[in-house]
Amino acid sequence: MALRAALRIKSALPGLLSQLSSSSSHGRVCASSVFVSQQRKNSTTPKIAVDFDQSTGVAVMRMKSPPVNSLSLDFLTEFCISVEKLEMDKSCRGLIITSSLPNVFSAGLDIMEMYGKSPEHCGEFWKAVQEMWLKLYNSNMVTIAAINGSSPAGGCLMSITCDYRIMVDNPRYRIGLNETQLGIVAPFWFKDTMSNTVGHRTTEMALALGLLYNPAEALKVGLVDQIVPEDKLMTTAEQTMAKWLAIPDHARQITKSMMRKPTLDKLVSKREADIQNFVGFITKDSIQKYLRGYLEMLKKRKA
Amino acid sequence: MALRAALRIKSALPGLLSQLSSSSSHGRVCASSVFVSQQRKNSTTPKIAVDFDQSTGVAVMRMKSPPVNSLSLDFLTEFCISVEKLEMDKSCRGLIITSSLPNVFSAGLDIMEMYGKSPEHCGEFWKAVQEMWLKLYNSNMVTIAAINGSSPAGGCLMSITCDYRIMVDNPRYRIGLNETQLGIVAPFWFKDTMSNTVGHRTTEMALALGLLYNPAEALKVGLVDQIVPEDKLMTTAEQTMAKWLAIPDHARQITKSMMRKPTLDKLVSKREADIQNFVGFITKDSIQKYLRGYLEMLKKRKA
Amino acid sequence: MALRAALRIKSALPGLLSQLSSSSSHGRVCASSVFVSQQRKNSTTPKIAVDFDQSTGVAVMRMKSPPVNSLSLDFLTEFCISVEKLEMDKSCRGLIITSSLPNVFSAGLDIMEMYGKSPEHCGEFWKAVQEMWLKLYNSNMVTIAAINGSSPAGGCLMSITCDYRIMVDNPRYRIGLNETQLGIVAPFWFKDTMSNTVGHRTTEMALALGLLYNPAEALKVGLVDQIVPEDKLMTTAEQTMAKWLAIPDHARQITKSMMRKPTLDKLVSKREADIQNFVGFITKDSIQKYLRGYLEMLKKRKA
Repeated sequence: MALRAALRIKSALPGLLSQLSSSSSHGRVCASSVFVSQQRKNSTTPKIAVDFDQSTGVAVMRMKSPPVNSLSLDFLTEFCISVEKLEMDKSCRGLIITSSLPNVFSAGLDIMEMYGKSPEHCGEFWKAVQEMWLKLYNSNMVTIAAINGSSPAGGCLMSITCDYRIMVDNPRYRIGLNETQLGIVAPFWFKDTMSNTVGHRTTEMALALGLLYNPAEALKVGLVDQIVPEDKLMTTAEQTMAKWLAIPDHARQITKSMMRKPTLDKLVSKREADIQNFVGFITKDSIQKYLRGYLEMLKKRKA
Repeated sequence: MALRAALRIKSALPGLLSQLSSSSSHGRVCASSVFVSQQRKNSTTPKIAVDFDQSTGVAVMRMKSPPVNSLSLDFLTEFCISVEKLEMDKSCRGLIITSSLPNVFSAGLDIMEMYGKSPEHCGEFWKAVQEMWLKLYNSNMVTIAAINGSSPAGGCLMSITCDYRIMVDNPRYRIGLNETQLGIVAPFWFKDTMSNTVGHRTTEMALALGLLYNPAEALKVGLVDQIVPEDKLMTTAEQTMAKWLAIPDHARQITKSMMRKPTLDKLVSKREADIQNFVGFITKDSIQKYLRGYLEMLKKRKA
Repeated sequence: MALRAALRIKSALPGLLSQLSSSSSHGRVCASSVFVSQQRKNSTTPKIAVDFDQSTGVAVMRMKSPPVNSLSLDFLTEFCISVEKLEMDKSCRGLIITSSLPNVFSAGLDIMEMYGKSPEHCGEFWKAVQEMWLKLYNSNMVTIAAINGSSPAGGCLMSITCDYRIMVDNPRYRIGLNETQLGIVAPFWFKDTMSNTVGHRTTEMALALGLLYNPAEALKVGLVDQIVPEDKLMTTAEQTMAKWLAIPDHARQITKSMMRKPTLDKLVSKREADIQNFVGFITKDSIQKYLRGYLEMLKKRKA
């Protein structure tokens, strides 16, 4: 399990490997994460902390699933339940999503949920990924991603479902849909969300090459809306939230729905086919072999 | 009526309120507009002046409906008739749209046509708004907006239907689809036109927040194509027009139609449903209450 | 034939005329091209040279059909056969397209294939143009355009079907879909490809005005991805190719197909109608008259 936890960190952050190994602070994260992960196995420690301020109508969700906020099935389930609860609370008008862990926002989908697992498990996992996207992209709340660390793959997806993205201006952080670098593929709704954010051409190149952007680059292509020093992140998020909440909810919500409905409808109408497609792809021998080779390479690097 | 006229200025320019109240020149516009508006009530003074130069094939339409070129039902009817006439005149190949009033291009849809009015009236009004859009976005002429003042909401819509936008570089002027700031919502064809101009992401944020851009900002996001000093506006428009008219009409027109037909077809096929949708929305008690609250706030501010 | 060859250079490069006539080096190209063209008539000299490096998996196609790599029916047929062969060779993973001629990448569609020709001939020609686009836009290989000269109209189309575009930074070179300047019209699939590259608004204006961009302008609007000095072109193309080939083929190919399939499907489903539309348009008396007037103007200029 220690190995798996360590692998998970790295397997989720392929583009960041060189940084991870050359950075002593990141090294510490890796080491400690092993213990945390072992602990976690038998605990019911929540993976997400939610603070809801009734006076402002704004909730802050802090992801705190060491080592790297991987989007495991458990994590996604807890995440969706949390969002759902806030969504149903009429007094909650805004949601800020951030991380409690150092240097990482979310490392994205947990590869261990797709490697060596049954088709049924893979299908269940994928349904949970869809659910997260549907909940966030369709949220009636104002959603702001306060990205205080690297955010590859599923972490990037989570960010681009939000109404606004603020990233800490640390040149070591990365964000992007880097699936192809792992030999896997972002599905059409990841692609649509990205394309709605940065346009067709940037998306085409970013997805083909599995590009990971540093904050300045991400700002330039429009993948994030603003970059700020670490200590200004939450105040900027709150100020931005106040600006969005100054708009009457009904007008903002109708507008948001108008902008996003065609993209949402596409997945809703093809949801089962998308699951089948994912399961068929990920359980292929060739893809599993690819993932295994990748994991073994990481194991060797670690050794 | 004096009150309504004064309200109309401000209700049409919510984002500009602070400027209006702090600017003595704008103040003068407000004051004089009351008289003009009273005069207008019983007059048949045309709201638009058209100069067509046979030698160049270019017509200039000057909107001159004080105080702020609000798009009332009367205004829209006259506007559509004017465009229609030019469209049918084969010798007219280009149209420049500008304002005769100081500091304002057009303040957009006249709120008084939607407040306290019957569903029938609201429906008739909305049909006229659709008509203006259809005529301009589908025009065979080269259309250039020479934006010599603020241009919120419907004024912005009018601008983005044109082939090219030149705005006077006065930092007090604003342009944008700011409907949500008023508690109302830009319909899908406003959104489509905006999205065709500045892309999906800029549109999503601009519409959600009801953003009004100053000329430099509008240029940066692509909402206008060029900004010029006030005294260069018309010569720039004419020079630009000459460049567009150098292209054979048939080739330019087929190209324009190819670019815009899908967007036009969408409204044409849903025109009646769009009217019903608007009428259902705007006549809701909650929306009328919203507009009333807004108008009362303006009245108090004025007092 | 000498005249026709000379005309072909100029008719294919209308936007570059002033440069052609004021540039002695271009003048030499024109003069020599007449002889080359006469030679070519009875020769079976290939119009394209292909070098495939088994060790890298990368093929380089050099267009070498003087005077200006016009896309004639013969050229397109040879081009499509060459691409097809590489596509079927599993060991070929990447394709770099460039020109062997000085100052020109490709001058685009050969006007002489559309002027004074039978509807049958025009239809056959257009089918070949479609075929080139379908083969390139749908290629499983990584395709890079190494644009070492002007690339108007069909030459631009060829470039924007590629995965990446590098252009030599020579301010005399031009690239763009300038069809309207000739009185003809880029069809919907040219438009779609352009729009996928530079977005809706830039495409609308570029096509309406038949804009030709110099390398710096093309970079700015995103029509090319990179500009480099002439002597760095091929090494940059090779380094870029290596970066693209570092991504697992299957993941990159699925991603590319996902991005491009809707655009490809549109032409595939309307292919015959598109041919009929082109033939109906190009064989119109008014359009032929237009082309004739244009060719005669060029003849006079030359005299």
